Amino acid sequence: MKIELASSYGFCFGVKRAIEIAQKYENSATMGPLIHNEDEINRLKKDFNVGLYSQLSDVKPDDTVIIRTHGIPKNDLKELKKRVKKVINATCPFVTTPQNIVKNMSKEGYSILIFGDIEHPEVKGVKSYADDLDDVHIILSVHDLKNIKFKNNKIACVAQTTKKKETYLEIVNALILKNKEVRVFNTICDATFENQDAARDISIKADIMIVIGGKSSSNTKQLHSICLENCKDSYLIENEQELEISWFKDKEFCGITAGASTPDWVIQKVYEKIKSFKP
Amino acid sequence: MKIELASSYGFCFGVKRAIEIAQKYENSATMGPLIHNEDEINRLKKDFNVGLYSQLSDVKPDDTVIIRTHGIPKNDLKELKKRVKKVINATCPFVTTPQNIVKNMSKEGYSILIFGDIEHPEVKGVKSYADDLDDVHIILSVHDLKNIKFKNNKIACVAQTTKKKETYLEIVNALILKNKEVRVFNTICDATFENQDAARDISIKADIMIVIGGKSSSNTKQLHSICLENCKDSYLIENEQELEISWFKDKEFCGITAGASTPDWVIQKVYEKIKSFKP
Repeated sequence: MKIELASSYGFCFGVKRAIEIAQKYENSATMGPLIHNEDEINRLKKDFNVGLYSQLSDVKPDDTVIIRTHGIPKNDLKELKKRVKKVINATCPFVTTPQNIVKNMSKEGYSILIFGDIEHPEVKGVKSYADDLDDVHIILSVHDLKNIKFKNNKIACVAQTTKKKETYLEIVNALILKNKEVRVFNTICDATFENQDAARDISIKADIMIVIGGKSSSNTKQLHSICLENCKDSYLIENEQELEISWFKDKEFCGITAGASTPDWVIQKVYEKIKSFKP
Repeated sequence: MKIELASSYGFCFGVKRAIEIAQKYENSATMGPLIHNEDEINRLKKDFNVGLYSQLSDVKPDDTVIIRTHGIPKNDLKELKKRVKKVINATCPFVTTPQNIVKNMSKEGYSILIFGDIEHPEVKGVKSYADDLDDVHIILSVHDLKNIKFKNNKIACVAQTTKKKETYLEIVNALILKNKEVRVFNTICDATFENQDAARDISIKADIMIVIGGKSSSNTKQLHSICLENCKDSYLIENEQELEISWFKDKEFCGITAGASTPDWVIQKVYEKIKSFKP
């Protein structure tokens, strides 16, 4: 069986940067999981004693606290700065961009549309920067627009950095037809584009696709859904332990891709285990 | 044979308004054709002695000059105001909007994209309002984008008021994927939308379509192209004299639509002549 990695996969700029920051601040703690990858978080704990808080109320005054790549809501950041000695911001710069856009556009009197998952920490953070929180609308598809009442006919749009560009265009197109001005900010991350395009290319050729990444990682789930469009035997796994030998029976071409928060050492282990199944 | 008018057709707000202005100023002259309809321009000449200048150099100091619905370039307007006693602006308010947008966006440092016909007077006028004329780009389709170098990665887009919305979306979608910010102004006129939608609806049912309007009228040509998509026997005529009885042989349903600058009295004559062919 041929085993091939997508031409672009895995760690993006923001994740690499956040991990470097965490490694630099030994004995610190992150506010929420630094990235959506449990194996890597366990490694940071083991090798650098980087802890993890899930609630603001748990922090202690002497802590050094690292803001996760996805960012946190504006008021949480303010509160955190009051409570601890040192706050290190590892928010991905590509997430800071939509935070600033929402802040400025809301101030300029635009209604805000966020294309993203209302429960995702990045989206919660981005939303929090609006002046008028009642005029920020978060949707996942063009169909959700019918339930929305904007306060203005000037709309500013941002997207969660890891979302699918095609769906974003569907949404902004519908808005353009019904509003005088739509200000479209392309906040989808290039790394996401590249991984998505490469996943599409390889999944067309493969008869089995292995997508490696956290089950709660938005961009990994996106990759999985793209692969499923072209290759029905596409599996999402977090690490090599989830691989099942039966998946590979009669397969001739195994494609591999990985989400933006999947470390190379996890990908390597998956690759080797697959190879051991069918040398 | 059944003869039916589209549910929306003919004169738009801007044209009606311009004709009312012209009728109010007897013995005036327009700078360029007031609207794209020769028959109506002849009527204004005959009934109200409204003349027509094609060049700025022809005006005389005592003239009252009316600006056409499509507007004129900024510097021409300035020059005209120097040369004549009275300038009356009959520019359609829906054309003044993109003029102002281009002026403001250019000042704010946006590259400008105009979706429209480079030779159309409206587009020439809209373009003229930019501060940096070298960073205004006029295109007719998404394919033209490949030849364009924007100076900024912030693009502001306007459309000629009478263009097809689907093509506009194709263009802005391509821009959104390649630029950080695309500010999309929906300057396509609602009346154009309505006439286009109604033309689509009736041309699906008809086996012959008559589209009435000036041969140089952009919105009339647009209606003709929409009708041709659904009904191969679609004819563009300026008035009843161009009708040919042979077109109607074996036809059972004749649909009629008319451009935004086609007066009702022209439509009425066409309707009656078709009826006389097949009572």
